[in-house]
Amino acid sequence: MLKWFLKTGLKNRYLYDLAKQVHQETSTRVSLNQDIQIPEITPFEFQSSKLQGKRINLLVPALSEKHIFGGIATALRLFREMIKAFPSVRIIVTDEASVILPEKEFFSDWTVQEIGTEDSEGNSIVVSGNRYGKTLPIREEDYFVATAWWTAFNAFRAMEWQQEAYSTPKRKMTYLVQDFEPGFYPWSTRFALADSTYRHPELTIPVFNTGLLFDFFKQQNYQFEQAYYFEPKFNPVLKDWRGKKGDTAKKKQILVYGRPSVERNLFPLIVQTIAIWSQKYSNAAEWEVISAGECHDDIPVNATTVLKSVGKVSLEEYATILSETSIGVSLMLSPHPSYPPLEMAMYGVKVVTNKYANKDLSQLSPLIKSVDSLDPNVLADQLIELCESRSTELKTGLELKDACDERCESLFNQGTGPEFEFVHELIQQM
Amino acid sequence: MLKWFLKTGLKNRYLYDLAKQVHQETSTRVSLNQDIQIPEITPFEFQSSKLQGKRINLLVPALSEKHIFGGIATALRLFREMIKAFPSVRIIVTDEASVILPEKEFFSDWTVQEIGTEDSEGNSIVVSGNRYGKTLPIREEDYFVATAWWTAFNAFRAMEWQQEAYSTPKRKMTYLVQDFEPGFYPWSTRFALADSTYRHPELTIPVFNTGLLFDFFKQQNYQFEQAYYFEPKFNPVLKDWRGKKGDTAKKKQILVYGRPSVERNLFPLIVQTIAIWSQKYSNAAEWEVISAGECHDDIPVNATTVLKSVGKVSLEEYATILSETSIGVSLMLSPHPSYPPLEMAMYGVKVVTNKYANKDLSQLSPLIKSVDSLDPNVLADQLIELCESRSTELKTGLELKDACDERCESLFNQGTGPEFEFVHELIQQM
Repeated sequence: MLKWFLKTGLKNRYLYDLAKQVHQETSTRVSLNQDIQIPEITPFEFQSSKLQGKRINLLVPALSEKHIFGGIATALRLFREMIKAFPSVRIIVTDEASVILPEKEFFSDWTVQEIGTEDSEGNSIVVSGNRYGKTLPIREEDYFVATAWWTAFNAFRAMEWQQEAYSTPKRKMTYLVQDFEPGFYPWSTRFALADSTYRHPELTIPVFNTGLLFDFFKQQNYQFEQAYYFEPKFNPVLKDWRGKKGDTAKKKQILVYGRPSVERNLFPLIVQTIAIWSQKYSNAAEWEVISAGECHDDIPVNATTVLKSVGKVSLEEYATILSETSIGVSLMLSPHPSYPPLEMAMYGVKVVTNKYANKDLSQLSPLIKSVDSLDPNVLADQLIELCESRSTELKTGLELKDACDERCESLFNQGTGPEFEFVHELIQQM
Repeated sequence: MLKWFLKTGLKNRYLYDLAKQVHQETSTRVSLNQDIQIPEITPFEFQSSKLQGKRINLLVPALSEKHIFGGIATALRLFREMIKAFPSVRIIVTDEASVILPEKEFFSDWTVQEIGTEDSEGNSIVVSGNRYGKTLPIREEDYFVATAWWTAFNAFRAMEWQQEAYSTPKRKMTYLVQDFEPGFYPWSTRFALADSTYRHPELTIPVFNTGLLFDFFKQQNYQFEQAYYFEPKFNPVLKDWRGKKGDTAKKKQILVYGRPSVERNLFPLIVQTIAIWSQKYSNAAEWEVISAGECHDDIPVNATTVLKSVGKVSLEEYATILSETSIGVSLMLSPHPSYPPLEMAMYGVKVVTNKYANKDLSQLSPLIKSVDSLDPNVLADQLIELCESRSTELKTGLELKDACDERCESLFNQGTGPEFEFVHELIQQM
């Protein structure tokens, strides 16, 4: 019995969901609450700029320091490569109503304006979270780079307006696609709107974050006239530490990638898996199970096993944990390859992860086991198999790393060279 | 400007989503709230039954009168056809903790038991919403029919237990698949679990609600050793009324299928579409726009157009509305064909609907326009085109019905004959 399951709430929670999901054939009045609004696509209004000259515009949801990591950080790195060819540059922040910029970024000294201000020369940042009743100046030679789906949705409107106002020829915007974003939602209006932004080959040049994601779009029959993609670069600090920590002895330790706030990392499923593993596997008590990623409460899954949170750790701590860990569990429901399973394999950790559509990371390393079915019973069985194989095999990370084959090593070593080799070609088209 | 858009809340709502969705690289402690639990898969415990004899078991989330419509009603119709060959029958209600049965159903006089009760002869209903610490009796010759994904998940556990306890050969359960249920969730644990139930060809005989849905599963590379499907039967009352209402004159009226509580019917997107249509289309003020499906507040989209809710209507009222309506809008983000676009076309209504994967209802009737992109601007343009075409064309539903071609008519007329022709073959395998 999974003791951490609370018995209370079962009935009510489900019936609530049932009432919400299935056909409501009763005549109960449905009230229109906030859910009918999609604030991200609150319309921009536009006006002609009094200024002229070629300008490149990046649309991002947020630009404050605390939001610059992951997808937004990647977008800013790409944009920084693109702006070299432009005399004037603008960042349009679509969702924040005010920004607290980081101190040492390439845009840290740019002019920050609230939307509704006159157009200005040089480089600027326009904050548009409170855009109701205010207008954004557009030049005849404004070019656009979109990121999250709703920034693309808004950029389409800007380009329509521009074409109408200036009779410009139809141009294409650059669209940085870092995941299949409809998957972040159930089948719903946001799913539909996100999907609609991928259906304008005549207006977009997509840039995909990984070839795997690009292949997914092609397999799902999305059409593009032109497209680029780039591959992940492994963290050079992790690469250095791998050399230094190579002789660390592996412990009976399972590391899970635990991010309760990111649904596609399937944290509840990992907890289920550990609970079933602990119940089924007779030697479970000999193992430590730790969770890195986000800080959360420790979870006692039964009398012998506690899922212990170490939270977000520094790169050195991460390297130490990877060196000492024998087995990893890292799930990501998306066609995007996530870094942790690859980083684990690079440190000689045997990893349980999941397939998704065209994604199968087991092709990249013999240490990665990717399962078809995300049944926690299947995952637990795979985990027991890996735990059992440990004692008869190699002991240190260094020895395990030797088991990495060439595909794996070459992936880890592709840290040199430009990240976005296609940029020159891309901006030639603007 | 879409006036119904509230300006308030934009900033906070989005930033909340952002914090939830994107990588949380801050060290904020994530607390484990209720979301880590998946109450639907709360484990059953099993025990050997003291009784013997072949029995068929249906697992459904709910059986109370108010829940018997849509998917559960279809499941009960199928089950009723299957039970004829069995001396003993049981319905296991997985989510309700108590049931209020309808009065005149085939199971209305069956014994209702709480889970934890001894097994009984004859036909019974076992209510399992409060199953913590209680056990369900299983016979050697219990056979299972699953419906919603979590009933399949639980049935797999019952079959595993049965095989262990009785050394029965591996059997297959019947799995009634009425939609691609992972689509009801974002990429998350529930998505993963729902998906995992489709990955047991060795344990399931799926029965798909429509051939279109079956094709979708095949195109997405799900494997099945055996499978059946059935097609929708149109409501005979609607069929009768079509003859009687045939000479009704069509009005300048747009009917939308409005169900705010069912996300995949995209109600917010329909409201957006009507707002853009009303703003762009110079004759919009001549048209009435009504919403049928669920009762909701009327929505003034701007100074000239109100989306007026008529709520859930009787079949006769529905037939009257269909007869008087010129244009329909009915969206459903799923590979399942939904009834309203087809019913509208049968009554001579020109319909705007959406494609999804292999679904394209425009192949069924020349009156159905199915769009690729669910951009509200694209939908509004399509709607304007249909409104404009109205005045130059046929006037009454009867005349418009004549425009239905054979494919369309044969679909509407397939109301005779058994709904589940494959049942005999299916139960032969039990």
